[in-house]
Amino acid sequence: MSNAAFYTGKRTVTHGPVLPREPGPGEVQIAVSHCGVCGTDLHIFHGNMDHRVRLPQVIGHESAGTIHAVGSGVESWKPGDRVTVRPLNPCGECPACKAGHSHVCMKLQFLGIDTPGAMQSLWTVPAHTLHRLPDGLRFEVGALIEPLAVACHDVRLGGVASGEFAVVQGCGPIGMLVALVARHAGARVLIAEVNAYRLAFARDLGFEAANPMETDLAELIAEATGGAGADVVFEVSGSAAAAAAMTGLARVRGRIVVVAIHAKPVEVDLFRLFWREIEMIGTRVYEPEDFEKAIALAEAGALPLERMLSRELPLDRLADAFHEMEGGGEAMKILMRCGQ
Amino acid sequence: MSNAAFYTGKRTVTHGPVLPREPGPGEVQIAVSHCGVCGTDLHIFHGNMDHRVRLPQVIGHESAGTIHAVGSGVESWKPGDRVTVRPLNPCGECPACKAGHSHVCMKLQFLGIDTPGAMQSLWTVPAHTLHRLPDGLRFEVGALIEPLAVACHDVRLGGVASGEFAVVQGCGPIGMLVALVARHAGARVLIAEVNAYRLAFARDLGFEAANPMETDLAELIAEATGGAGADVVFEVSGSAAAAAAMTGLARVRGRIVVVAIHAKPVEVDLFRLFWREIEMIGTRVYEPEDFEKAIALAEAGALPLERMLSRELPLDRLADAFHEMEGGGEAMKILMRCGQ
Repeated sequence: MSNAAFYTGKRTVTHGPVLPREPGPGEVQIAVSHCGVCGTDLHIFHGNMDHRVRLPQVIGHESAGTIHAVGSGVESWKPGDRVTVRPLNPCGECPACKAGHSHVCMKLQFLGIDTPGAMQSLWTVPAHTLHRLPDGLRFEVGALIEPLAVACHDVRLGGVASGEFAVVQGCGPIGMLVALVARHAGARVLIAEVNAYRLAFARDLGFEAANPMETDLAELIAEATGGAGADVVFEVSGSAAAAAAMTGLARVRGRIVVVAIHAKPVEVDLFRLFWREIEMIGTRVYEPEDFEKAIALAEAGALPLERMLSRELPLDRLADAFHEMEGGGEAMKILMRCGQ
Repeated sequence: MSNAAFYTGKRTVTHGPVLPREPGPGEVQIAVSHCGVCGTDLHIFHGNMDHRVRLPQVIGHESAGTIHAVGSGVESWKPGDRVTVRPLNPCGECPACKAGHSHVCMKLQFLGIDTPGAMQSLWTVPAHTLHRLPDGLRFEVGALIEPLAVACHDVRLGGVASGEFAVVQGCGPIGMLVALVARHAGARVLIAEVNAYRLAFARDLGFEAANPMETDLAELIAEATGGAGADVVFEVSGSAAAAAAMTGLARVRGRIVVVAIHAKPVEVDLFRLFWREIEMIGTRVYEPEDFEKAIALAEAGALPLERMLSRELPLDRLADAFHEMEGGGEAMKILMRCGQ
């Protein structure tokens, strides 16, 4: 038997044994070591994604582990291989897939939301989702590869270049990783965040950081850039106030990268977008090269990823993780231990 | 003496003689033949730009004419040359100018708004603003080069490619020109417009056109594109409803080009932008190459530009032009005759 954590609806989770699914053709079964808890998992816990999950649902998609078994036709992988999972299963048939954008497939199955997830000791996934983890990389850090790949995707699509001035609005785990990757790309990074813990965390990692409720960000950025404005703004906060402000921070021909989920339409200053010929880019999940980049950064020790790991809990304490995250959290990333 | 039309504040215009300004160093004096009336001129008439104009203000910036006199140091131009004016006078010093984006200079002087305009028989402008008009091009069509250059800029920055599906929301003169240039670039173009005259005008020029108040545009576009969505959407309407709708029309990784002036922040569906990794681009005025492109298109007779010319009025009837435009207008472009 495998152990698993289940979302059981209406802000409840449970924990217990589950019969592991044998890997079918083209699949592998992973002995999951660790799985990070994502804001999306919290969304599921809150019932906001009940239209997508099937109860009881094993959730989780930020995984690292070892291959336990392989199905027929799988030739590139063998038991014992250390892996992480790019949890996307595209249809291959829709216009987005056919145009080469299968990561945002119009019928995308996201593993751990639309299918059972990684918070179980044995997890079966399509082999095409695997990326190899270097031998020297701890599984705890391996479980950060998925959110780090999001950040690599955002920074890549945002076209961040060395010497540029970048603003990151919202400094939860994704915002923090975006800031780290942008800084590694050579940008000067200013973090805008209202939460005191996160502000202190950002400063502790050497970032300039300001609370937009207390500081006039546009003025601060103008001073720092000779009146030009930011080269690139990452909107990772999901707040309407930040969406309203973002166009005021970018320079002429600057870029705004919309990473956050804004569940409802928000007011945007399209006049400023027009006036300064600003480019706004929506970015979602990652492509294979972003996973490879994330793994390379982790392997090289280029980023203080260990610092992102706030806490580790056994699978039966998933509710505790959610409650801590709900509190605004004195935590960046909470990991669940999935191993038997 | 020169004749001129003046904006005199509070929805009033007048007409009368004005002492022409002699061209100084680096300047030329143009005998203006025709000047188109722009929506921006109507804005000025309505008092919306009183903070920029100085009363009484000669307005107008869509000009064509002949050089009458040249100032000292002007070597590339001589009296008799047929020209149009790119009415931008950048500062050359601001961060935008220094970064090579002087067309959206942060202290841009727009001729005809921030300085006296083209609705006078003799108009003095910096020589660097001139573009040569081909001998065979009528001045009436020459006066369309400025708005046509806007459209060339929008289509260029929108990256329109042959075979693409483009939507143009709002079909006043600029929207119509965007549609024509996009079609010339090889796109299939759907026009969305609520005004019956403009819908009929668009259809008469061979465009597919629909009223978004009566037709489900997203459905229409999905059917036309195999479910993909539009490759590029031009928002030229300036309406909040169109801004709310635009993200729903673009395909995965599609582009939205914001051409219209949205004076106030409007609700935008950033979720859809994120979900489909849509790119939104603000575009404003033009660069020199857009003027050259517009002139080349006009010279080649590639577009039915004569059809855009609705009416021609003498300078003393500028108020009539504005009143006609205010009515929603059975007109595309109204030209003022500026010659003595």
